[in-house]
Amino acid sequence: MDPFKNLHLDIPQTQKKRVVIIGGGFAGIQIAKGLKGHGFQVVLLDRNNYHTFQPLLYQVATAGLEPDSIAGALRQLFNNYPDFYFRMAKVTEIQPEEQKINTLIGDLYYDYLVIANGSKTNYFGNQEMFNLTFPLKQIPQALNLRSQMLQNFEQTVLTRDPLEKDKLTNFVVVGGGPTGVEVSGALGELKKHVLPKDYPDIDFNIMNLHLVDAGPRLLAGMSEKASAKALKYLDAFDVKVKLNTFVKNYDGEEVTLSDGTVIPAKTVVWAAGVKGNIIDGIPESSLERGRILVDDFSAVKGIRNMFALGDIAFMKTDRYPNGQPMLAPVAIQQGKLLARNLIRQSKNEAMKPFDYVDKGSMATVGRNKAVVDMPKFTFGGFPAWLVWMFVHLLSIIGFRNRLVVFSNWVWNYFTYDRGTRLIIRTFVRNKNYKQGESL
Amino acid sequence: MDPFKNLHLDIPQTQKKRVVIIGGGFAGIQIAKGLKGHGFQVVLLDRNNYHTFQPLLYQVATAGLEPDSIAGALRQLFNNYPDFYFRMAKVTEIQPEEQKINTLIGDLYYDYLVIANGSKTNYFGNQEMFNLTFPLKQIPQALNLRSQMLQNFEQTVLTRDPLEKDKLTNFVVVGGGPTGVEVSGALGELKKHVLPKDYPDIDFNIMNLHLVDAGPRLLAGMSEKASAKALKYLDAFDVKVKLNTFVKNYDGEEVTLSDGTVIPAKTVVWAAGVKGNIIDGIPESSLERGRILVDDFSAVKGIRNMFALGDIAFMKTDRYPNGQPMLAPVAIQQGKLLARNLIRQSKNEAMKPFDYVDKGSMATVGRNKAVVDMPKFTFGGFPAWLVWMFVHLLSIIGFRNRLVVFSNWVWNYFTYDRGTRLIIRTFVRNKNYKQGESL
Repeated sequence: MDPFKNLHLDIPQTQKKRVVIIGGGFAGIQIAKGLKGHGFQVVLLDRNNYHTFQPLLYQVATAGLEPDSIAGALRQLFNNYPDFYFRMAKVTEIQPEEQKINTLIGDLYYDYLVIANGSKTNYFGNQEMFNLTFPLKQIPQALNLRSQMLQNFEQTVLTRDPLEKDKLTNFVVVGGGPTGVEVSGALGELKKHVLPKDYPDIDFNIMNLHLVDAGPRLLAGMSEKASAKALKYLDAFDVKVKLNTFVKNYDGEEVTLSDGTVIPAKTVVWAAGVKGNIIDGIPESSLERGRILVDDFSAVKGIRNMFALGDIAFMKTDRYPNGQPMLAPVAIQQGKLLARNLIRQSKNEAMKPFDYVDKGSMATVGRNKAVVDMPKFTFGGFPAWLVWMFVHLLSIIGFRNRLVVFSNWVWNYFTYDRGTRLIIRTFVRNKNYKQGESL
Repeated sequence: MDPFKNLHLDIPQTQKKRVVIIGGGFAGIQIAKGLKGHGFQVVLLDRNNYHTFQPLLYQVATAGLEPDSIAGALRQLFNNYPDFYFRMAKVTEIQPEEQKINTLIGDLYYDYLVIANGSKTNYFGNQEMFNLTFPLKQIPQALNLRSQMLQNFEQTVLTRDPLEKDKLTNFVVVGGGPTGVEVSGALGELKKHVLPKDYPDIDFNIMNLHLVDAGPRLLAGMSEKASAKALKYLDAFDVKVKLNTFVKNYDGEEVTLSDGTVIPAKTVVWAAGVKGNIIDGIPESSLERGRILVDDFSAVKGIRNMFALGDIAFMKTDRYPNGQPMLAPVAIQQGKLLARNLIRQSKNEAMKPFDYVDKGSMATVGRNKAVVDMPKFTFGGFPAWLVWMFVHLLSIIGFRNRLVVFSNWVWNYFTYDRGTRLIIRTFVRNKNYKQGESL
């Protein structure tokens, strides 16, 4: 039986211009908010009923935060918003000629379409990696990694074979971007402060943490100074970093690196890259490097009334000839600007071009350690870690979530503890949470 | 491949007497704590790595609390406990003659065995109910119910057929004990205060809440006065209570009651009863009413060095000729006493018999409404609700959990909001989380 039979989007037809937004991420939320009270009908579509605060997913994966704390129910965000419609629906195709989208539960015409469905894990076509490694882009994936990690230690206690113990306690993180660095640092912290108390039977000297990156330095999007600091901090947490190295082969039990090293490990975190979630129907001519080519106004090249924001958008500017960085602040700023531009257009005022205001970028490497790149200088250590926490707290959606995350952090800091070491999901060893996703 | 091959319990053999505890519930935790530092080797076995605070499961199911807040990692509870061993393992059989248990990962000899593995949902042999209804005894089950509920409302928005809308928005709760009453009250609160804001497209007059009980009154374990108050409170939350009624038939779409009423409903919560988790190997002669027959010292009748505590134990006393009530305080008191008795025995002192100190029982029916039975009198309303909250807060395991739950409750109270309206688990319509469980 077709589960979507007899379901309808049922958006009422009004005199207002209809703005359809695909994706409730950073960009989608901002444009939806910005359009409130300006005479548009706003339809927000997402496959989940919640917004995910992706920068903290690694903390869910490493038992530092509860999953609910970093997610915000989308309907709740838009309570008391007249002519706003949220629909949990998967968009299957866009028909730009007819200004129409197809979803699993029916079609919808739009006056303006805003594509803000972000990026997904890039396996670079490697089916083995897709099948056997742990990605970290969605909440269920973070919970899978948490379960896997804790189950590994439970099994280590029950295992006598030294090689098997190695496989269970070793972790290989592939990709030295912010996610890879942060998850490695958090694992280092767990090894140092948390796990030995829980597992007195395990000798944690056998636990080896590896971070592998194909490029010449970590945090390639940040300054060289930041990369060097991150490397130093990871070293302090006993994370073995291998640069200019990639994974040649993985069978679920042993990782073979390009330099010939073989690491026994049942858990490989795949944070090697992302790619755009391209929906069918967007002509090839409007794509570049797997993202949607847009002009300074976020308008999709060559297609009328269609916009793309955030990670999915490829916007070349003088300062960023290779596209804007795939970061939350870019998505947020683009979302806000497009809302204002659509309002300006409706009043026959001129639209303003996008210009990314870079307030700095940062990554944390665990307790008391982070790196912050400001436009003019770089700093690290404890001050950077405080800034990192402060900025992330302010950015989380919802006052309640901010409170809960703050309380958890204070708690974790003073107790050297992690509150959420629970294996709630079923046993999922080396099976990704696929959710209809294809490579 | 057998996933348990090559796994071993690996408990070291020492001079100390070994106490093996099956189950990390209220009773199991208490006896393990009580034995600390008294010269025993303590082995705690549980199929989960966490303790579940079952009295608040219904709040997880109704989006009031995060699942992690009501669970406590068992290893964490027993940090810095010499000669304590936690093993995540399922016990398959007990061999009383040999003082041995069999688990999926090996056998273990004991000096004392403490069975404290509690109770499970009782479907009274009805396979249909097992397949199609939602139980509420474990955290994954509570999350399933939460997902189902929220998915139902998302679907209601997309549905035109009035009968289908009825099926999606109606909820039938079977069983008028504390769980049934509390979940019904919470659903009534959601209907009244929370859902209409999230789903302005739905006319919530079509949402009908039914509570069905086969007996003549609600909360049969409490006073008649408490039952009457609970009925009144449920009425105020628009819950339709049917007493002396049972479910005759359910096909996943329509509930047929014994009085002929047909209720279209895709969601039936099964809270009609529990039964003991009887492990193979306990002789029939040691069982009564599906529980393990014990004397006043929690010793299993006719078997040496074997004890049973809490829900699984059937202990007849003068005051409770039909066994102690299946309540957390009984389990806690039995666990504490048995620890002290084993210590007494080791010093050749006399053991003390169990005598349940009933400090009162209670149930909440939603915002500002609860009933409390004290040994001498009954009260309800706002004072009862405050007492209910206070007692539950104090009983939750772990200071961090107490803090998080308290913050959530304060937040929910003042905002009339529920923080965790997220559909994180996959679509599970009318499929129980089986986890190897059989009817």
